[in-house]
Amino acid sequence: MSDEFYMSLALNEAWKFQGLTYPNPAVGCVILDKFGKILSIAAHQKAGCGHAELNGVALALKKINPNLIFPKNPNEIYNFILENHNNLLKGSKAFVTLEPCSHIGKTPPCAKLLVALKFSEVIIGYKDENKIAKGGAEILKRSNICVKFGVLEDKCKELIEPFLSWQNGNFSFLKLGASLNGVLKGGVITNLESRQMTHKFRSLIDLLVIGGNTVRIDRPRLDTRLINGTKNPDIFIYSKSKNFDKTIPLFEVRDRKILIQSDINLVKNYKFCMFEGGENLIKNLPPFVTHILIFFSEKFINLENLSINLNLKLLFMDKISDNFYGWFKILR
Amino acid sequence: MSDEFYMSLALNEAWKFQGLTYPNPAVGCVILDKFGKILSIAAHQKAGCGHAELNGVALALKKINPNLIFPKNPNEIYNFILENHNNLLKGSKAFVTLEPCSHIGKTPPCAKLLVALKFSEVIIGYKDENKIAKGGAEILKRSNICVKFGVLEDKCKELIEPFLSWQNGNFSFLKLGASLNGVLKGGVITNLESRQMTHKFRSLIDLLVIGGNTVRIDRPRLDTRLINGTKNPDIFIYSKSKNFDKTIPLFEVRDRKILIQSDINLVKNYKFCMFEGGENLIKNLPPFVTHILIFFSEKFINLENLSINLNLKLLFMDKISDNFYGWFKILR
Ligand SMILES: [Zn+2]
Ligand SMILES: [Zn+2]
Repeated sequence: MSDEFYMSLALNEAWKFQGLTYPNPAVGCVILDKFGKILSIAAHQKAGCGHAELNGVALALKKINPNLIFPKNPNEIYNFILENHNNLLKGSKAFVTLEPCSHIGKTPPCAKLLVALKFSEVIIGYKDENKIAKGGAEILKRSNICVKFGVLEDKCKELIEPFLSWQNGNFSFLKLGASLNGVLKGGVITNLESRQMTHKFRSLIDLLVIGGNTVRIDRPRLDTRLINGTKNPDIFIYSKSKNFDKTIPLFEVRDRKILIQSDINLVKNYKFCMFEGGENLIKNLPPFVTHILIFFSEKFINLENLSINLNLKLLFMDKISDNFYGWFKILR
Repeated sequence: MSDEFYMSLALNEAWKFQGLTYPNPAVGCVILDKFGKILSIAAHQKAGCGHAELNGVALALKKINPNLIFPKNPNEIYNFILENHNNLLKGSKAFVTLEPCSHIGKTPPCAKLLVALKFSEVIIGYKDENKIAKGGAEILKRSNICVKFGVLEDKCKELIEPFLSWQNGNFSFLKLGASLNGVLKGGVITNLESRQMTHKFRSLIDLLVIGGNTVRIDRPRLDTRLINGTKNPDIFIYSKSKNFDKTIPLFEVRDRKILIQSDINLVKNYKFCMFEGGENLIKNLPPFVTHILIFFSEKFINLENLSINLNLKLLFMDKISDNFYGWFKILR
């Protein structure tokens, strides 16, 4: 199979954790042994956990030697691998959507890990322009590892656009739950797993944006109870009137800041923001909302749709139990 | 990676040709060399063309030896492979969604091909119950090829349900083109590639079913012009009144049978039928319509949706240029 085939496996795995890696970028990694057999398909899943390359290497070693018992902490995993790899991955090939890092963060640099394990080739989708992390390819090349750039570069860039965007000050996306025929109302539309994923986002974002009318009518709690979350998001209520019934559950959630504002541009002061509707807000999405995450339930519902004009580009789609979801970019 | 991983690659490839293989089943095949490297991902694409295994083997050999120049006709390809394989695939592993055939059709049996090429293992998703084709696994086993059954069996069965259904008398599906918010009207919704795929189906089906009102209002041609098709489908107009303006383009298409009937059950006399709407017919889908193929354009449109209740199960989804499409099973 082509380099593009393996890179798309890495891309696909990375997209599953899009946004969930905040403030880190989503990154995917596929490792082939020296004979070209796939050993692992991995991704960075969460800030503080292993980078894609570390996870990929650990999975690959585990595949070759199932008896290896890895520690939990990424830094310990890194050192465990250096001590126990036994050259098992010598001559292997790694496909990474983003240039392996060269800096010491939660773990030592991934580029040095691939060097220590004697990888023969590293195929990189997108060159890291991050001032701190870049330079991984140079480290690889200095150790005579063959480095290839630009495989599915555009798609690998698309993958880290949210990261580039929040690094640049703000990444805002709209989350929708819809039936297959565009119905958003009439009670809970999507399945538990979809709503749990939404609650995961709520536990990570800096700000949840919601329209004033929706707050008044739906009386939401907007917490993270479905994942037993300990951190609940601060709320931005987009409303001219500051007058709200304070028995609406969202006001009862502790340790939360609530802003009631009529200037939507204030949202841009926060780095990672999720818009959750309702209709009026969706119909007047500010231009800095660049992406839409839609959870689709696999049914048609006999109700009116959300009727607006929007041109989108599908970036990624996946099943989530008996629903599916897609990341879309808004074309303007 | 697991057997399930490779089988899902085979399944995915097969689904791309769902219905297009009529009257044959959709089948996928993945071949790994003796080291576990993927050599090919292939599918049966069209009746009269190579089976999935033949296509997979040809692609795999071409991958190892790009200088091989294959003939066009599947029977000639089969013989060419027997003469030129040079044991290049000795020890290989094949993942097939359906048991390899044991009968002589357009080509000699696929099971014997895998034996001749000295495959070491064949992993089969679904056991073929077809009286003519079954027995492939026995042929493999007699030659000491390791045979494993039942990997992703349910999904492999889902893949051939349309085939089992038309073999049993009738397979009928509804085709829709929709915006992301369930709008079906207001002119052409989906892209050229989606409509070309629809025209491919039109060139293969035994009957195209359409509601009388839609014929009167839309005045469609219902031909295969987008693929320069030579065969146009016979038409079933579901209507109480037999009174139609004969200048409606569909009546002008030559060599076509047109039935105007109020008994929808007459459709079941035809093996492979596509329903193309409109709204009234969709709202009263007969129970023998078991599947829906939806082409989605990547946009929201400021119009009313198709408002009905339908519970579906997503079987397969893929991009088609800047649209995507999904095969759904209707849950009743
Ligand atoms: Zn790293
Ligand atoms: Zn066959």
